[in-house]
Amino acid sequence: MARLSRNIDVTQVLEWQEGDLRRFQDHLAAEEPLEIRLAGAPLTVTMRTPGNDPELAAGFLFTEGLIQHSEQIVSLKQGAAGKKIMSETNDSNRSQAACNVVEVELRGADFDRERLQRNFFAASSCGICGKASIDAIRMRGIPAPNPEFRLDPEVLCSLPDKLRAAQTIFGRTGGLHAAGLFSAEGIPLVVREDVGRHNAVDKVVGWALLEKRLPLSHCVLMLSGRGGFEIIQKALVAGVPLVASVSAPSGLAVQLARQLGLTLVGFLRGRRFLVYSREERLTPQTG
Amino acid sequence: MARLSRNIDVTQVLEWQEGDLRRFQDHLAAEEPLEIRLAGAPLTVTMRTPGNDPELAAGFLFTEGLIQHSEQIVSLKQGAAGKKIMSETNDSNRSQAACNVVEVELRGADFDRERLQRNFFAASSCGICGKASIDAIRMRGIPAPNPEFRLDPEVLCSLPDKLRAAQTIFGRTGGLHAAGLFSAEGIPLVVREDVGRHNAVDKVVGWALLEKRLPLSHCVLMLSGRGGFEIIQKALVAGVPLVASVSAPSGLAVQLARQLGLTLVGFLRGRRFLVYSREERLTPQTG
Repeated sequence: MARLSRNIDVTQVLEWQEGDLRRFQDHLAAEEPLEIRLAGAPLTVTMRTPGNDPELAAGFLFTEGLIQHSEQIVSLKQGAAGKKIMSETNDSNRSQAACNVVEVELRGADFDRERLQRNFFAASSCGICGKASIDAIRMRGIPAPNPEFRLDPEVLCSLPDKLRAAQTIFGRTGGLHAAGLFSAEGIPLVVREDVGRHNAVDKVVGWALLEKRLPLSHCVLMLSGRGGFEIIQKALVAGVPLVASVSAPSGLAVQLARQLGLTLVGFLRGRRFLVYSREERLTPQTG
Repeated sequence: MARLSRNIDVTQVLEWQEGDLRRFQDHLAAEEPLEIRLAGAPLTVTMRTPGNDPELAAGFLFTEGLIQHSEQIVSLKQGAAGKKIMSETNDSNRSQAACNVVEVELRGADFDRERLQRNFFAASSCGICGKASIDAIRMRGIPAPNPEFRLDPEVLCSLPDKLRAAQTIFGRTGGLHAAGLFSAEGIPLVVREDVGRHNAVDKVVGWALLEKRLPLSHCVLMLSGRGGFEIIQKALVAGVPLVASVSAPSGLAVQLARQLGLTLVGFLRGRRFLVYSREERLTPQTG
């Protein structure tokens, strides 16, 4: 298998169609582990599509509550021994491995490594029921997202096509989740793709953090996949008032959205969608 | 929001269609954290759709390499204080919380809790590149899946519809991943659904482990979602010779399938599919 670019593999596949066989070169989303190291020690490893890795690390630290603002990041370096991002054309295993590490140095961050290393989610849901999971998020003191934000349903209906158009890898591989931030006018601010839905969201939020655009109180987060509890949690931490998905949310995601005041839209396809919470933010523009 | 059954929530939603509004009761996949406890201490927490939780715990322990056969499981109990599975109609927070814990007692299992608690995947990919991730799986001594297994492409094409037909929750919620085991004749053996793709696979493998049907050397694993690296890893640990998905695999998943000799099929839709590895297992039945 050859690596076409940092995030696309190319390989020969066999097509079977109605009994006819055909061989061709297909594009696949690359997938590699990324290790996030904090103060010289490993913090977590996630399987991700290479690309925007410092954003992924920053977004992860932020949405999981380890940092509250970008000033806490002293440095964010890619490479095993703290090297800067390596040449993308050098794809030996050694440099590949180096690219799969992001070293983070923080200041003023208050975290308990043992608690973190157990399990990020476990830490926030020790009560171990859905209600406790929501309570744990309330306890983090996350404010309700912007109640004044308004979005025209016509703009909302335009977002899936815009997300698809902005996806650079998906068109070729058909295998990636995407997350995109849009303004209330439907203008794309950033779109990120990843084999993991959480990673795509962490990359988007990490971008916003590093660009000093938080909180995202005037943005819509558009997802190509489902809106589960952890995705809504990440959106709330970033201050997003409206999350829209082409698919179904889980029950707990809806409960969380309702209790913390986020507008949650699902099954956004063509000129139809479902609203699960805080519908008042969806108002047709007059005039 | 009301809980219709252990794994389905029901709630009112607002539909917007071409500017027309309609309210109705919608079904949502329930999502709750499950804590797996080992020898009295928390091991991991995963967000899952309630149901088949002992299977989920067993499958997780097995596919992550903590146990190699079901005899190592001394007990597998659901409930905070080791109580048996509680009444499904009693949905107070207290009983809900109890249902979200599975306590496991093992014998003869060789594991390093500290290594485990850091991160399951981290442990198996410390080399931190895709190649090292694959090498780590080789090092676990996982044998190549059954080279004699054969599947008729016509049977393969019938599986997505059969998987959909066997899904009990998806039809109502539209929001779940499914994993199903089928025989070479296309007969469904078990189908499990979950908000998480990994959980659906762990539930299927856990079922097979508890039913003493491992290795699954004469089975097809059919997935409603993508086949990423970790999914292929779980299939290999269970001895599955053929994995099929309606969507795209990642590049690393294909590399793993090729190196360990698993047949990987993607984009299985209607009467067309792509084969990424070991196509010799797909042979039309003669006569």
